[in-house]
Amino acid sequence: MISRVLSAELSEHAGQRVKIAGWVHRRRRLKSVSFLVVRDRAGLAQVVGTGEDLPGEESVVEVTGLVTAAPQAPGGVELTEPEIAVLAEPAQPPPFDLYRPSVAAALPTILDHAPAALRHPALKAPFEIAAASVAGFRNALDGLGFTEIQTPKIVASATESGANVFGIDYFGEPAYLAQSPQFFKQAMVGVFERVYEVGPVFRAEPHDTARYLAQYTSLDAELGFVRDHRDVMAVLRDALAGMVSEVRRRAPAAVRLLDLTLPEVPAEIPAVHFTEAQELLAAHTGEDPRGEPDLAPAHERWLSEWALREHGSDFLYVTGYPMAKRPFYTHPDPARPGYSNGFDLLFRGLELVTGGQRLHRHGDYLAALAARGEAAGPYEGYLAAFAHGMPPHGGFAIGLERWTARLTGAANVRQTTLFPRDLHRLVP
Amino acid sequence: MISRVLSAELSEHAGQRVKIAGWVHRRRRLKSVSFLVVRDRAGLAQVVGTGEDLPGEESVVEVTGLVTAAPQAPGGVELTEPEIAVLAEPAQPPPFDLYRPSVAAALPTILDHAPAALRHPALKAPFEIAAASVAGFRNALDGLGFTEIQTPKIVASATESGANVFGIDYFGEPAYLAQSPQFFKQAMVGVFERVYEVGPVFRAEPHDTARYLAQYTSLDAELGFVRDHRDVMAVLRDALAGMVSEVRRRAPAAVRLLDLTLPEVPAEIPAVHFTEAQELLAAHTGEDPRGEPDLAPAHERWLSEWALREHGSDFLYVTGYPMAKRPFYTHPDPARPGYSNGFDLLFRGLELVTGGQRLHRHGDYLAALAARGEAAGPYEGYLAAFAHGMPPHGGFAIGLERWTARLTGAANVRQTTLFPRDLHRLVP
Repeated sequence: MISRVLSAELSEHAGQRVKIAGWVHRRRRLKSVSFLVVRDRAGLAQVVGTGEDLPGEESVVEVTGLVTAAPQAPGGVELTEPEIAVLAEPAQPPPFDLYRPSVAAALPTILDHAPAALRHPALKAPFEIAAASVAGFRNALDGLGFTEIQTPKIVASATESGANVFGIDYFGEPAYLAQSPQFFKQAMVGVFERVYEVGPVFRAEPHDTARYLAQYTSLDAELGFVRDHRDVMAVLRDALAGMVSEVRRRAPAAVRLLDLTLPEVPAEIPAVHFTEAQELLAAHTGEDPRGEPDLAPAHERWLSEWALREHGSDFLYVTGYPMAKRPFYTHPDPARPGYSNGFDLLFRGLELVTGGQRLHRHGDYLAALAARGEAAGPYEGYLAAFAHGMPPHGGFAIGLERWTARLTGAANVRQTTLFPRDLHRLVP
Repeated sequence: MISRVLSAELSEHAGQRVKIAGWVHRRRRLKSVSFLVVRDRAGLAQVVGTGEDLPGEESVVEVTGLVTAAPQAPGGVELTEPEIAVLAEPAQPPPFDLYRPSVAAALPTILDHAPAALRHPALKAPFEIAAASVAGFRNALDGLGFTEIQTPKIVASATESGANVFGIDYFGEPAYLAQSPQFFKQAMVGVFERVYEVGPVFRAEPHDTARYLAQYTSLDAELGFVRDHRDVMAVLRDALAGMVSEVRRRAPAAVRLLDLTLPEVPAEIPAVHFTEAQELLAAHTGEDPRGEPDLAPAHERWLSEWALREHGSDFLYVTGYPMAKRPFYTHPDPARPGYSNGFDLLFRGLELVTGGQRLHRHGDYLAALAARGEAAGPYEGYLAAFAHGMPPHGGFAIGLERWTARLTGAANVRQTTLFPRDLHRLVP
């Protein structure tokens, strides 16, 4: 039995008879000769035959043939003198031609037919980039002494932000889907010092936008024994560098296919304080946002362009957001208590990551909740972690689908989610 | 500023003044001298002081001191002439002494106080082993050309097994938490050929047992272009070997602390057919299970012992389970249609993994559902993947918590779950 060779390896076997396997990507019958293009996980291979009876598109085939030089074929070789075995015939033709350079259908149609549509090389490529990014995230943090954890996705109270949470029937009791692993990862700083989790988070997002989904993949990290948020920013920088580097290493074909320019992650990502960002906007744009507690999307875009122009960086940290707009567990800036040790990371015009230093003293938590008029009761399990001694710590969360969308230039996070879930979409 | 050194690195700094940071694991005052044992993510370090006013257990401290040889101390060195800075004082003493060799509390009490209890080195160690196992799983599959995917945890219908599913309110519509990524990973074989996912799965398990949880972490894999289930078993073998190897490499301290004997994964894991297993049981035990459609837990234990005795293996495949006990998507054995191409993997007396070859032809799915008296309607999205040409494929799922429990000898999967969720437990 001849064992299988991948399309991308064919050129190493010139002059040999080998077996490939995959889907018929394209069947072309010319006057004197017919071609099959076979798609496998590594790419495309061309098969030249003379038969009349070639299998149609999306048929699953094994083809044994002679690897023959052919400068015009993918990889410079093609299979000649083929024997073709059909492993499975499609029951239906695909809803669109998968061999064309792009799928000629609107996004909702593509999403409705995800199992077929994602076979298209250009629609599949972002997910190869996503997989490589996650691997890079883990590599970087593993190298920095982090421990991977898994935390509950079913929680007893909708604590982090009351709205936008999915209720579930938990053995007859009300419970909720976790909006983030925030509380668990902080508690685990007390155990492992440095933890990360890659997992689903859930938001009952009532708006149908290009940026939000009901479920997304959160790359969460949290670390103890920090000076302040700047140590967190340094770790995030390393995580991003690891992500880009693994995309380069693991997904070169996807990068080429999508014609991407991958960002350089500077050794130190430029940072501006929130108030400094507002000064810049006031000085250089027609607007004066000073006094506003947050940045508008247009401001984020301008600041990103500024960072690229002034610092040659696709990334920009904005630090010191006003406490009023950050969650109760945010650590204030000791020098400027109205401002926080929280930051956002802007990437190519959009907020990609939120992070910061957290409170670490039990008493500070009680005071922060009281100041917001919130009872401590629902937070009891969370607060217990801080009652037993917690170091100064902080962390961040990267939305994987949003990262991949920014990296690939996808306009909608649904293009970087295999099976998106939103207000209107619960299948396939 | 002196930068921080980990406890495990202290011996490399003999004669130098260094800074360590961590929690006061133990404070001991003797007549003429006092000791602090400081716990950090890498282990323990001893600090010798003379002060009266040493911080109590679980205080978070930074200690600068001189690294001095001390044969009786951990790592053969201790810190002398210390300067101690307290970063945070505990608001409460821990609910049990964390410095004792084991935590003197019943499991429910330990779980109620997870953020404190998991600081105990022996309770934390299984999670270091779990993290290393997952890394090994991914390494092995990455090396075999698999792509990591993320799939929805919210699904429209409770298809795989009607019972034991959590209902959720999805924007006013009924939806369910996914019991497995089965359908999604199969569909993605059509896109990536070989996929894996590490993620939470949910079962509304109404029984309070040592083996089942409402949420656990499933290590799922699925691969196309297989001959039959034996190719799947070979990949599972490599995944297990990768897991054990990374535990050895990444978590040696946890292995030592728990005094574990890690299994050898044989190059080929021994396999017996289901009927052969029943013959063995009939011939060598007092019972005759022939005719039964499944193996009882006692049978699994006997077979595991048999595999260890006859093959020197902690692992045993049982193949060819009767079709009647396997899900509708299971591929029958072409040579013995009442039996399946499904398998279980027994590990040290317990079923650890279920897997097998799946149906791949659209028509076979329609026939299998019809034979079980099930309508095809609720499976429409799933079946669509098979309508467009799918190769012979199969896969498996390993329960991470169960794997870690078997590896560490934990009697209850709650000991290998950071924050378990079950019939009676929704916090912390």
